Amino acid sequence: MKNLCYLNGEIKSINDGVIGISDLALQRGYGVFDFGRTYNGKLFHFDDNIERLRRSASELHLSLPISKHEIHEIADQLIEESDLETPSVRLILTGGYSYSIPVLKRPNFIIIPEELPTYPIEIYDRGVKLITVEYQRELPHVKSINYLNAFRLEPLRREKNAFELLYHSQHGVTECPRSNFFAFLGNTLVTPSEYVLHGITRNLIIKLAANQFQVEERMLSVEELHNVDEAFITATSKRVIPISKIDNTEINNGSVGHRTKAIMRIFDEYTEEY
Amino acid sequence: MKNLCYLNGEIKSINDGVIGISDLALQRGYGVFDFGRTYNGKLFHFDDNIERLRRSASELHLSLPISKHEIHEIADQLIEESDLETPSVRLILTGGYSYSIPVLKRPNFIIIPEELPTYPIEIYDRGVKLITVEYQRELPHVKSINYLNAFRLEPLRREKNAFELLYHSQHGVTECPRSNFFAFLGNTLVTPSEYVLHGITRNLIIKLAANQFQVEERMLSVEELHNVDEAFITATSKRVIPISKIDNTEINNGSVGHRTKAIMRIFDEYTEEY
Repeated sequence: MKNLCYLNGEIKSINDGVIGISDLALQRGYGVFDFGRTYNGKLFHFDDNIERLRRSASELHLSLPISKHEIHEIADQLIEESDLETPSVRLILTGGYSYSIPVLKRPNFIIIPEELPTYPIEIYDRGVKLITVEYQRELPHVKSINYLNAFRLEPLRREKNAFELLYHSQHGVTECPRSNFFAFLGNTLVTPSEYVLHGITRNLIIKLAANQFQVEERMLSVEELHNVDEAFITATSKRVIPISKIDNTEINNGSVGHRTKAIMRIFDEYTEEY
Repeated sequence: MKNLCYLNGEIKSINDGVIGISDLALQRGYGVFDFGRTYNGKLFHFDDNIERLRRSASELHLSLPISKHEIHEIADQLIEESDLETPSVRLILTGGYSYSIPVLKRPNFIIIPEELPTYPIEIYDRGVKLITVEYQRELPHVKSINYLNAFRLEPLRREKNAFELLYHSQHGVTECPRSNFFAFLGNTLVTPSEYVLHGITRNLIIKLAANQFQVEERMLSVEELHNVDEAFITATSKRVIPISKIDNTEINNGSVGHRTKAIMRIFDEYTEEY
């Protein structure tokens, strides 16, 4: 068992996983990525990750150098040969080596098996705080490597003791830097429809919740945030995390509501059986 | 004579200039850079590049690991030992190695000597075409590595046979992805004051032009573009390139005007004597 990675056709030690400094991701931020995880040792809806990576790449005129089947096989092998408690995999596709924007060459394609980040159990019981920030991600439907704004605002997030930022723009409430946002207004579950990354967990929650609640994919105004009855965020590693506070407003009196608990249960059941 | 680079304290062959795949520039686009050039073999206003890199880094909570003096010395050495016709240097500072946003470690600092890109001589005689595109760079005063939008629109630029994009937003006309924009309205030279990167060539042109023209740093509306008498763009490698057309509108009947020629001459004289 050792730490491995895949780089342009070869599986190698993570220590040999290096990229030349003329790569366009390093020089010009030209890259897309995706992040898949396992449940019960098995990659979870991983084809959705690969498909989204392909779409992200395509929007930026890049293409995956190997097939979906091959990516799946390599990811399985990396997970098998790595010693990870809860394996996840990061897929990165960069613009490749070039010093000049018009002269594009072969992209660099990287697969890294990683230990899934974990979060304290208490936050699932008590909920977390979000702070609202005015910002619109540039190409929201593209999972690009651009997280500059999240890094820029990291000290603010810490200072405000918030778990995540909640972005809003002229389009309304959108998403968190690395999570999707959902709100209950009564028994109706609302999640922003556009100007967001369509998370794989998000899309599953929409499907699974529809058995029990009315679900609306639509834009949500900042004013409506004051009237939400419950809220939660979703992400691959985070699953469903309840929101107890947005800025200075407590949600559901600062405790986790029964509808959010129902969503967490539905999702847990789904992943346990996967 | 060989191809060299500087990486975290060491000068090495460019082939050994590699970065591990857990670097945050590769994973999350977390990096800033700057680009200096020589005239007559001497680095040109290079302290301005270093100072701007320091400011860009600071906005994103990064700091330069070595002093201005050391950077200057290393750049001089790299240029001396490289076989370049017109040497230029690229400085890149990344977020360093980490898999997690909150856990930041030591940044990676890279200096690469490069051959200065050259442009066909005709474009300085005839001018080039710009196409306008609605877009606002995220952190315009920060020279971050984020050029995703320029890559995304590269096919459009080619299709429209344009030399560069000219961005505008709710703030007015701003800049090109890698150049600053200037326009003459009569004998008054106007260049956007805010929401742009303050280019080193731009700042010099403002100073040098002031001896001969009235210079206004102010926002310029898209409508005003139809009434400009002359226009040009500036950048470190491009120097002063005249604009003969913006979208379908010819500037100065599609030829290079005498005021722009005066600016080109003033700048050439300044750099020849540097």
